[in-house]
Amino acid sequence: MQETETIREICSRKSVRVFSDEPITPQERDTILSSALQAPSAGNQLLYTVIDVTDAQKKAALADSCDHQPFIAQAQLVLVFCANPLKWHDAYRLFGCDPRPLGAGDLMLSVVDAAIAAQNAVTAAWSLGIGSCYIGDILENRETQREILRLPAQVMPAVMCVFGRPAESQLSRPKPPRPALTRMVHENEYRRMDEAALKELLSYHFGTDAFEDRLRAFWQRKYESDFSREMTRSVAEWIKAFSG
Amino acid sequence: MQETETIREICSRKSVRVFSDEPITPQERDTILSSALQAPSAGNQLLYTVIDVTDAQKKAALADSCDHQPFIAQAQLVLVFCANPLKWHDAYRLFGCDPRPLGAGDLMLSVVDAAIAAQNAVTAAWSLGIGSCYIGDILENRETQREILRLPAQVMPAVMCVFGRPAESQLSRPKPPRPALTRMVHENEYRRMDEAALKELLSYHFGTDAFEDRLRAFWQRKYESDFSREMTRSVAEWIKAFSG
Repeated sequence: MQETETIREICSRKSVRVFSDEPITPQERDTILSSALQAPSAGNQLLYTVIDVTDAQKKAALADSCDHQPFIAQAQLVLVFCANPLKWHDAYRLFGCDPRPLGAGDLMLSVVDAAIAAQNAVTAAWSLGIGSCYIGDILENRETQREILRLPAQVMPAVMCVFGRPAESQLSRPKPPRPALTRMVHENEYRRMDEAALKELLSYHFGTDAFEDRLRAFWQRKYESDFSREMTRSVAEWIKAFSG
Repeated sequence: MQETETIREICSRKSVRVFSDEPITPQERDTILSSALQAPSAGNQLLYTVIDVTDAQKKAALADSCDHQPFIAQAQLVLVFCANPLKWHDAYRLFGCDPRPLGAGDLMLSVVDAAIAAQNAVTAAWSLGIGSCYIGDILENRETQREILRLPAQVMPAVMCVFGRPAESQLSRPKPPRPALTRMVHENEYRRMDEAALKELLSYHFGTDAFEDRLRAFWQRKYESDFSREMTRSVAEWIKAFSG
């Protein structure tokens, strides 16, 4: 593995969920956001809008609507990266074009734009000593998130990241391991994995002792959870707004 | 704006579509892929699989199926980041769980995981002097991409990136400008933009002279294009496979 300063930082970066009181300065905030905007984007359309949630009540509401995680409200910077093909559609409409309705492709391309930008923010923040955590739960509870953030039906909060300086305890926490490259990278064609290959792959997560018990517990806790079912309901509703 | 080496690289990175002949070494390839795997991921599930396309015929087929862009076939590294909640579903099924069907939420969370990982690869590559370009067109032509990459119905190629050392001409090409932060970042609530605000926002793309003519030409060339309509058809088909 070759190393550059950037690669070292990418590899050392881990999620931070407990923050110190030291604030993020306005200059740091702007640096993080400017780094996000420098991310590549389809046709340089920047198919997203970032909502910077500064209001304490709204932070608390999001902490609640995102699977009841109080640390969200304690973050010093809460950014919601909304997939937003609507602004372009609005512009086309208002400036005399006759645009086709927004469809699933427009949504998906925008979600990718939003996620790429968010990762730039996360990487830039880490290089400033600022930690972050992605909150996938922003995909749940469409109706509540729309109300909190005043979102039109076609502006979807695809990615949420919260930022703050890591508390001491977080810095010593080991980064969860990753599998070997060969298990995550297939050459030329997708190889569907059998029991043995899946166990080998997922052992980075569950180890090899009691693998099956741990997998089953994870399945119950995560995949069959209320929040996971809610996410799928919520996202299906978002997609309906892009049915062309 | 504060600067670190990483932030400087994030901000200088631009898309590269013409590559020199100098190869990407196996060590560089592994560094790029390892950096991707270090990206954060929902529950550390790594809900994606990377397909490293090394076969010349397959590269040529992708160049064709992704809106006929020959430079794709000339890239030294072609990575397709597939959203893949199926491997977990397979593991649950094979190890005695009774998982609910995959739904839209599982797909979307996986797309975000895949995009975040891809951006780590792109950032790591740039720090090694290796350029890259995202190919959004991988979302088109579902049936053809499935055949080329042998993808199951629930493994969606969400993001494709091609890599190579920049040709001289590419290094001198200016990076396309971005709008001011205030136009892309809204505080607390989404502000729907009127004509004036949209013109202000989109002037980074079209300038202010002949704004409307340029917007209309872009609308015709991009939004009403065959490839854009095809993308929306194709993604809608992908989503059908995740209807729960």
